[in-house]
Amino acid sequence: MTQFTHFDTSGQAHMVDVGDKAETRRIAVARGSIRMLPATLALIQEGNSKKGDVLGIARIAAIQGSKRCADLIPLCHPIALTKVGVEFEIESSQPVIHCTVTAETVGRTGVEMEALTATTVALLTIYDMCKAVDRGMIIDNVQLLEKQGGKSGHWQATTPA
Amino acid sequence: MTQFTHFDTSGQAHMVDVGDKAETRRIAVARGSIRMLPATLALIQEGNSKKGDVLGIARIAAIQGSKRCADLIPLCHPIALTKVGVEFEIESSQPVIHCTVTAETVGRTGVEMEALTATTVALLTIYDMCKAVDRGMIIDNVQLLEKQGGKSGHWQATTPA
Amino acid sequence: MTQFTHFDTSGQAHMVDVGDKAETRRIAVARGSIRMLPATLALIQEGNSKKGDVLGIARIAAIQGSKRCADLIPLCHPIALTKVGVEFEIESSQPVIHCTVTAETVGRTGVEMEALTATTVALLTIYDMCKAVDRGMIIDNVQLLEKQGGKSGHWQATTPA
Amino acid sequence: MTQFTHFDTSGQAHMVDVGDKAETRRIAVARGSIRMLPATLALIQEGNSKKGDVLGIARIAAIQGSKRCADLIPLCHPIALTKVGVEFEIESSQPVIHCTVTAETVGRTGVEMEALTATTVALLTIYDMCKAVDRGMIIDNVQLLEKQGGKSGHWQATTPA
Amino acid sequence: MTQFTHFDTSGQAHMVDVGDKAETRRIAVARGSIRMLPATLALIQEGNSKKGDVLGIARIAAIQGSKRCADLIPLCHPIALTKVGVEFEIESSQPVIHCTVTAETVGRTGVEMEALTATTVALLTIYDMCKAVDRGMIIDNVQLLEKQGGKSGHWQATTPA
Amino acid sequence: MTQFTHFDTSGQAHMVDVGDKAETRRIAVARGSIRMLPATLALIQEGNSKKGDVLGIARIAAIQGSKRCADLIPLCHPIALTKVGVEFEIESSQPVIHCTVTAETVGRTGVEMEALTATTVALLTIYDMCKAVDRGMIIDNVQLLEKQGGKSGHWQATTPA
Repeated sequence: MTQFTHFDTSGQAHMVDVGDKAETRRIAVARGSIRMLPATLALIQEGNSKKGDVLGIARIAAIQGSKRCADLIPLCHPIALTKVGVEFEIESSQPVIHCTVTAETVGRTGVEMEALTATTVALLTIYDMCKAVDRGMIIDNVQLLEKQGGKSGHWQATTPA
Repeated sequence: MTQFTHFDTSGQAHMVDVGDKAETRRIAVARGSIRMLPATLALIQEGNSKKGDVLGIARIAAIQGSKRCADLIPLCHPIALTKVGVEFEIESSQPVIHCTVTAETVGRTGVEMEALTATTVALLTIYDMCKAVDRGMIIDNVQLLEKQGGKSGHWQATTPA
Repeated sequence: MTQFTHFDTSGQAHMVDVGDKAETRRIAVARGSIRMLPATLALIQEGNSKKGDVLGIARIAAIQGSKRCADLIPLCHPIALTKVGVEFEIESSQPVIHCTVTAETVGRTGVEMEALTATTVALLTIYDMCKAVDRGMIIDNVQLLEKQGGKSGHWQATTPA
Repeated sequence: MTQFTHFDTSGQAHMVDVGDKAETRRIAVARGSIRMLPATLALIQEGNSKKGDVLGIARIAAIQGSKRCADLIPLCHPIALTKVGVEFEIESSQPVIHCTVTAETVGRTGVEMEALTATTVALLTIYDMCKAVDRGMIIDNVQLLEKQGGKSGHWQATTPA
Repeated sequence: MTQFTHFDTSGQAHMVDVGDKAETRRIAVARGSIRMLPATLALIQEGNSKKGDVLGIARIAAIQGSKRCADLIPLCHPIALTKVGVEFEIESSQPVIHCTVTAETVGRTGVEMEALTATTVALLTIYDMCKAVDRGMIIDNVQLLEKQGGKSGHWQATTPA
Repeated sequence: MTQFTHFDTSGQAHMVDVGDKAETRRIAVARGSIRMLPATLALIQEGNSKKGDVLGIARIAAIQGSKRCADLIPLCHPIALTKVGVEFEIESSQPVIHCTVTAETVGRTGVEMEALTATTVALLTIYDMCKAVDRGMIIDNVQLLEKQGGKSGHWQATTPA
């Protein structure tokens, strides 16, 4: 029967044993978005060209956040990340900013949580930097897009939000 | 003109000076959701009664996460939280789990980011604990619901998602 | 002559060189106890069935604490844990709660300190959660029970407390 | 009826609201011990005079550990410590080393957990530094000795171990 | 006789008692420099206008670093910073980049270490980002420029490097 | 053309992909100095023999700091250090204290930043412990002395400061 792996047979939480898993290259891609007022997006876009660089700072926060994943998520294994990349895409018509994070390791367990944590930290940082002008921003559609490596192989989201 | 407060007049990021602000009681309420498969929600609900307690662990992660906020969000001030409460609400029909976090301090700056960070850490923890059975879960509608205290007074989201 | 390995030949502290050690599977089991009033234990036992889950929270704190070991213990090497398990055993007659932690890695140095740190964090968390009703609780008999892997091989405590 | 304050009325864990408490000077004194082989104690005592300084390092670890308390203990409030002092006492006849930590703050909640955390980190550090020669050391009798300040006033352990 | 305050009368390190000090506004200004090859400085200057923003990232690292000060410096008190500002000045003729950090709090102890820690983290980050093209960069003249608030009043460096 | 590796081709910061690099033994040696008043150095030297041990504490802070490197430097990879050694050298005639740190790992990327971070944390700790008697101390000549391992092979500073 299907079970959550983070609980043992008596239902107690544990950090799952990955000691027997092979060290393979593991990749995870996560994505999320933040919706805002048109005026807020305009200020962010201005800043990228000549004033404060909101997205540049959110990118650094995301990379730093990926390294704090095991501190934040109780049952995550500590992982030595070998790569983290962060991309932003601006959709002015909505208006919305999308953030995509790619995380990689060569290790015994996947990096989905690192990619998802980095994504949310990026979006929270955008919120923080713009909240004085737009408290109503909404973080949305944070999800895993893709995962490679390990026993479960290649997985892709069938219905990206 | 409207400006982001996290940049000085030359457009450089700084931790905003709050030394002249009064120490007042400040409250923030944030909320977010995670959508999942019906079978995943069923497993979580089972666990709450007799097996692994997914929501209990996510609650602890949220409280711990609220204390790491200034570590994660670059321009946040360190804050001595005086209260953090975390509530979950299960909507079986969707199916979705909503998480609401109330954070408080007596200080010179607000606790919106602490409430939002705790909310996302709770949702990420739920994702982590259930991902072995449902990688397609989506974190959604993370937003500030309400804020009290400080110069800007009482604010409420006009369009809760 | 017998020497402490954490000091070099001139008596200065260093993080010992483990670069030449083989990467082997290493296991450590630690145990410790907390003694309390009968009424305190009764409240904890009630909570496990229907109110606040003291031991569930202590278990999560222990797992999180195992990951902070190298932050806390100055000369510890950072280690990528591959497994952490936490068991509680209640001895009502004393009354006392015992906590046993098993930690594992595949690496160049042992995980005794990770197991011991997790054990003490679990016991401190129990103290914290119950101190409003019983400030006189005592943490006792924290010790290494067993250790496998590495050059020194299998070791077991001869006189478990 | 007596209740654990770390749970709300529905039995869910929360960081207790201390926003209405007065900022008063709060002091806590904790104590704990580590038992070891006579030869181990002899090496430590030698080191204090001319080689590696085990107790000096444990003292620093304890002070650093006191500042990590809210990171480790899930429901602890973050606190701005105003003083931390660490004393060691060697009882050669046992042989055992006792560690006593005094922690202070001017704040809304007590510092018992900071004092207890610092004590256990000191003892764990002694274990770490001596484990190559004595794996059987046992940490014992970690308890709160005294507490001042706050609504509950002055408390002293009636039966120090 | 003049004494180091970080040691008690028996020469043991402690976190100095500041519980009796008044909460006053305290300001510290620190400064430091990094010397490099002309070609390295040229690449940094290019980046600021159109490619990678080395100084923007170093500024964020400095602000984040100021918040980690008490984690890094053993006897520092944890402090709630109320402001951190970071300025860079490029002296092309040397070539050298100067970094000046202003830190503030309203508290019982000074923020010199926060300002100095932020300065060195900024300079280390510049080193990290440019080391692939210039391993010989040198961090220089890190010093306290000015300090206000507290019992010792206003202090200024007499011989800025 | 020469480029900073910490930016991708569009100039965005990323944590560089090291997944294809070989795991080799990597060594870095960094050095830095702190200049002070003759009376300050005299107090430190006294302390080493019979009162507070400034350099012993700075050594521990350096080792702990080396483990926090990836937390502090945004684009650093997390690394499992296999050795950290810290040496101090007193030059009374200046007066100045030099600190040399050797860091090692067996991994996919170098440990220069770990060695440099540890060096600056040692020097900052000395500043902190002596600042009550000498606020004008200056940290100087922090640089990489040597680097071994990895694709770039053996590098030595041509002009040690």
